[in-house]
Amino acid sequence: MSAELDPLDPVALTSALVRCASVTPEEGGALVLLQGLLEAEGFRCTRVDRNGIANLYARFGEQGPALGFNGHTDVVPTGDVSAWTRPPFSGEIAEGKVWGRGACDMKSGVAAWVSAAIAAARGGVRGSLVLMITGDEEGDARDGTVALLDWMDAQGERVDHCVVGEPTSRQGFGDMVKIGRRGSLNARIIARGRQGHSAYPHMALNPLPALAGLCARLAAHELDAGTDHFQASTLALTSIDTGNMATNVIPAEASARLNIRFNDAHDGAGLVAWLEAEAAKAAEESGVGFELRARVSGESFLTPPGRLSDLLSAAIEAETGAAPELSTSGGTSDARFVKAHCPVAEFGLTGLTMHQTDEYAPVDEIERLRAVYARVIAAYFA
Amino acid sequence: MSAELDPLDPVALTSALVRCASVTPEEGGALVLLQGLLEAEGFRCTRVDRNGIANLYARFGEQGPALGFNGHTDVVPTGDVSAWTRPPFSGEIAEGKVWGRGACDMKSGVAAWVSAAIAAARGGVRGSLVLMITGDEEGDARDGTVALLDWMDAQGERVDHCVVGEPTSRQGFGDMVKIGRRGSLNARIIARGRQGHSAYPHMALNPLPALAGLCARLAAHELDAGTDHFQASTLALTSIDTGNMATNVIPAEASARLNIRFNDAHDGAGLVAWLEAEAAKAAEESGVGFELRARVSGESFLTPPGRLSDLLSAAIEAETGAAPELSTSGGTSDARFVKAHCPVAEFGLTGLTMHQTDEYAPVDEIERLRAVYARVIAAYFA
Ligand SMILES: [Zn+2]
Ligand SMILES: [Zn+2]
Repeated sequence: MSAELDPLDPVALTSALVRCASVTPEEGGALVLLQGLLEAEGFRCTRVDRNGIANLYARFGEQGPALGFNGHTDVVPTGDVSAWTRPPFSGEIAEGKVWGRGACDMKSGVAAWVSAAIAAARGGVRGSLVLMITGDEEGDARDGTVALLDWMDAQGERVDHCVVGEPTSRQGFGDMVKIGRRGSLNARIIARGRQGHSAYPHMALNPLPALAGLCARLAAHELDAGTDHFQASTLALTSIDTGNMATNVIPAEASARLNIRFNDAHDGAGLVAWLEAEAAKAAEESGVGFELRARVSGESFLTPPGRLSDLLSAAIEAETGAAPELSTSGGTSDARFVKAHCPVAEFGLTGLTMHQTDEYAPVDEIERLRAVYARVIAAYFA
Repeated sequence: MSAELDPLDPVALTSALVRCASVTPEEGGALVLLQGLLEAEGFRCTRVDRNGIANLYARFGEQGPALGFNGHTDVVPTGDVSAWTRPPFSGEIAEGKVWGRGACDMKSGVAAWVSAAIAAARGGVRGSLVLMITGDEEGDARDGTVALLDWMDAQGERVDHCVVGEPTSRQGFGDMVKIGRRGSLNARIIARGRQGHSAYPHMALNPLPALAGLCARLAAHELDAGTDHFQASTLALTSIDTGNMATNVIPAEASARLNIRFNDAHDGAGLVAWLEAEAAKAAEESGVGFELRARVSGESFLTPPGRLSDLLSAAIEAETGAAPELSTSGGTSDARFVKAHCPVAEFGLTGLTMHQTDEYAPVDEIERLRAVYARVIAAYFA
């Protein structure tokens, strides 16, 4: 396949990658394809697989400075295939778009960087280009970028700055660069009382009033008013459940679920402690037992505006005529792991169709993304 | 069957009635048995069936005053028959008890009154004895006692006072007479907002904080502090449900269920109006839409202490040595329908095993209940 593929053509490369059915945790041939292309250009490649997840480390050059790129080739499931206008793994190029699952999120981003990096490598680089491509971004993300970074630490492999190629543009190409993300915490609060007959509530200990009160208090609490680079932290109740259909029975147990997206005014442990304290207060007031099960899926992080965001902004402005917004909005990405290693910023296509039926990436956006990445690489080593 | 049955023996009659498998809405032979016995003693009997439900009206004597008795021969299902020590419709008399479904609730009560009434009829009654026996107390109760009372109204048949034979004794035989009941109202409150991603709560309209706040407010509200003959009204939240397992999704809809048991300081319509007003307030504060679905399954009622409770108290004290407590506690019964017709009070066995596996009625309690009923009948016409 790589024999007939021009690695400098990011559109053809996006299409070839989409044809690899790499639904997490399947490698689907995507990393094999990339490894073939990169090794042919003199990149030193290593598969860093862990627990059945495939990951690819590739490096061109051994001196510093080292500019890294992080991306993923795994994709979310297609859902009902019959709902797609074109087969989801066709990679068809039509109507000025590359069609298929992963076209937008984010095989086009990987393809654009790979083709820009190969072009740069052919011209010679005063430093190193490092690619960390994972097959576990859409899954648990336990054996993907984390495995690559663990392996790099063990090998003494380092990069100085890193670009993540997730789709970050919002309304139009180039309007947003992400320099950080809020953290995310999921919690389940289980309230336990004592069952009884609804005609005799004083004989029971109903967990629902205490749980409802606690939920209302948590939802009304203002976590902060935003910080320099972040919008305000938010708490969303996502479910309250009891499952008691007997109208004459007071239930013994009920539970609530919530999600907190938090900025750099907080950390996960502090928020868990706050939830614990609120639950303890509710328990003391009501006699109901509260159990908190919390999981911090990512701390907030920020790469303050500086060299990396300046490089990206300048490259984007040169290409589009307008500087991007530097934002910390949105959900999590693997940038949260890279942040522990080096300064990181994210830039990629508009993400309009990501995770949706009939996902696509516009051909002209892929070309422009490659051009921006090429400018970033050139300026980084200038 | 009635040929070999001594209608003056309430224990044998209880056993014979238990052998009729009269799970609502099955008549099971129970009313046929009673009609045979009563007609043989000169009671004028009419089956008052409605919508597939069997009911029996029986009257001895045509002059006033008329003392009524209301009871039911239908029973709740047996549940897992293999969990019963004896077959649930065996009516076996062993260990000083009559065993089987309905032995306690309330074929023993019917048997005790029927045998006392037949004994009284044989001696002559200065007035009338009226029995209203229904096959729809444990079901919807739409075509049971209500059908009998409708028919009586249409026929010009009236009673002046009525005893209901439900198991009302609590710890020991004769310790409680019920002179009223609280009303009951079930409501479901559905809160509707707008779905969204939990990372962007301001783009969604989360129904949960508003619903939790409303629930907490309703549960904390003191409806009243009790009235002369009633304990305080209660509101029990019985369920809050969402069914959203996606931690990154804010749900569009959630709902709560609650049960109110209310005394004579309220009526169902007033409470529904209060719930509507509270929901409207919550809707106005939050923008969330609230729908209230309420059903008043019974209004509160009271027969103030007077002739009927005096008669029952005196008969019980003569039999047990202690006067009963006059109570308005507990769930609903058909007394709520009879109340619209005439003063009503309830007295029967201890209800320890009602609706349970291995239901039974102690032989000595059945005998004593018959004796109390006989004293009531005698005193009423004295
Ligand atoms: Zn992605
Ligand atoms: Zn009953």
